[in-house]
Amino acid sequence: MRGVNLSDASRIPSTRLKPVCIVGLGLIGGSLLRDLVAQGHTAYGYTHSRNGTRAAQRDGFDATNSLIDVLQRAQRDDALIVIAVPFEAVADVLDAIAQYAPSCGFTDVVSVKKPVYDLVLARGMGERYVGGHPMAGTEHSGWVASQEGLFSRAAWVVTYDYALEVDRVPECWSQLFAQVCKLAAAAGAEAVPVRVNPHDEAVARVSHLPHVLAEALALVGDKGGTLAQSLAAGSYKGGTRVAGTDPVLVRNMCETNAESLVRVLDEYIEVLHTARADLAGATPSMKQLAESGHRAYTRMSARSGARRESVSPVKISSRPVMRLHPGAPGWVRQLQQIESLGGRVEVF
Amino acid sequence: MRGVNLSDASRIPSTRLKPVCIVGLGLIGGSLLRDLVAQGHTAYGYTHSRNGTRAAQRDGFDATNSLIDVLQRAQRDDALIVIAVPFEAVADVLDAIAQYAPSCGFTDVVSVKKPVYDLVLARGMGERYVGGHPMAGTEHSGWVASQEGLFSRAAWVVTYDYALEVDRVPECWSQLFAQVCKLAAAAGAEAVPVRVNPHDEAVARVSHLPHVLAEALALVGDKGGTLAQSLAAGSYKGGTRVAGTDPVLVRNMCETNAESLVRVLDEYIEVLHTARADLAGATPSMKQLAESGHRAYTRMSARSGARRESVSPVKISSRPVMRLHPGAPGWVRQLQQIESLGGRVEVF
Repeated sequence: MRGVNLSDASRIPSTRLKPVCIVGLGLIGGSLLRDLVAQGHTAYGYTHSRNGTRAAQRDGFDATNSLIDVLQRAQRDDALIVIAVPFEAVADVLDAIAQYAPSCGFTDVVSVKKPVYDLVLARGMGERYVGGHPMAGTEHSGWVASQEGLFSRAAWVVTYDYALEVDRVPECWSQLFAQVCKLAAAAGAEAVPVRVNPHDEAVARVSHLPHVLAEALALVGDKGGTLAQSLAAGSYKGGTRVAGTDPVLVRNMCETNAESLVRVLDEYIEVLHTARADLAGATPSMKQLAESGHRAYTRMSARSGARRESVSPVKISSRPVMRLHPGAPGWVRQLQQIESLGGRVEVF
Repeated sequence: MRGVNLSDASRIPSTRLKPVCIVGLGLIGGSLLRDLVAQGHTAYGYTHSRNGTRAAQRDGFDATNSLIDVLQRAQRDDALIVIAVPFEAVADVLDAIAQYAPSCGFTDVVSVKKPVYDLVLARGMGERYVGGHPMAGTEHSGWVASQEGLFSRAAWVVTYDYALEVDRVPECWSQLFAQVCKLAAAAGAEAVPVRVNPHDEAVARVSHLPHVLAEALALVGDKGGTLAQSLAAGSYKGGTRVAGTDPVLVRNMCETNAESLVRVLDEYIEVLHTARADLAGATPSMKQLAESGHRAYTRMSARSGARRESVSPVKISSRPVMRLHPGAPGWVRQLQQIESLGGRVEVF
């Protein structure tokens, strides 16, 4: 790493998490608030929904309906701000942070990273921002859907493009990166360093595409009428579950990542065309798709998340781990190495 | 119903289940054996796998590795035979039943019904056959995957084409129909009367199509390499789960139902093409698919299986129910009515 010496880096606090200010208390923001408080950290939040604010307060959490208040408090506390609103609201939140919490570092949990990063850079806020994206969720939304433990063992993407773009990584940015990794760990997740473009391509493939497929399967299944409805079982329910997600949220993630999504959708349609041709032949065959699909499933299952075959109550992560000290010499090169392995970092 | 009078029908036993002989002790046959024995019924089974036989015996079940032995025993017991082998083995099992259990009624649990029915009719065994298909399963197979309660609240399709094709429904067939409905109930499932062609069309839509989509998603996800593998979470795992199924079983069901499957696959590809065009536009939009898919999901969820919103420990089925007496006047017309509603029957 260019220009940050060890004596600087050694000042980074290693065990403590700053107070955390969560802007947006839906499924993700709300679940994070629950986890942080459960772990004994100082955390509070804002939601624009009066019902959501009241519900969070009734559940015993420190929540407010005033964005200005919560950001001014964050500024006083030198808090880490987490932007947990849908993408369409991110620009307004960034403007509010610039005005009311002008020296706080911040991260986000939005499911696309390049469009958020562009908004951040356009405001000259790159030095104060480390992007994030916890790969966890359910088909439900809002504070009522939030739950402790939602992020347990999930990948929590942490972006680091800024460190590659500047001549010298500011110490405050290294410290912010460490804080965001610790935030992920506090939520029980695993910090996975990824640059914004590879992130957006990968989630188009493993998250946004599955959402498109689920919506389409719900539509085609429903066309079968009452009989198909009556017979729908596990394979259908598994394949359509995320079509239960609020369509506004689905649109938000798919439309903001449309370029990558269209590319993988084309790949997918091509696979279906081949399968269709094989099934429509004189001797219908699904040999190729069934066998290659099953092999792919087996490979993916072996890697994604915890090893399921483990009988130990202590689950072993299947992601390779690298321990590093943000700010130490060569740490950004280490991030690039671990990204190429789909691995995780532990900061100290 | 033509020609069966009430005095005949009244001789049908209403509460007792005959001994049940299960040919094939994989996921479905094995789970059925577990349920029946747990419910206090007499049930035994055969599997061609020596390991499967030993495993079932070790678990305390009455299992044999000899098809001839088990069918001769079924003949002595006047048992109900359940064919629970993959489709490719059905013809051989039918021939063995004709030879060693020539007067037993039989049913099956194969996921396509027209091809099985054709094999039955080609052997002149229609009077002794009522088709079945429990809409339940997991991505695992073999005796080791079998489990008590697998069919709880599932639809268990019971076919009745034979009753529409003959001039006069034989009493033995009405009794067999009743036995198969009781078998489904003994396994905790709901007997849903459906003719073979509507069945095969409906399962192409809600079961075989989801299997094709899962295999294709596994393939496309895996192409994303280690990073995509590391980031894959709930939506991907839900959408690919059934790609974990033994590819031989997936091929069996999809290839034997290829005609219906190709039709719904074409419908599905058409939906994806439209979505692709909407996402590739100057202003990417997923409004139409996200909103219509979510509405379809909501409709399907309201109908398929038990009402999830119920807070009572006694789950209420969302399928309309018709109580009927097989053999009673008009009972076949009643089956047609309940099929058109995607409903279930309870026999008495």
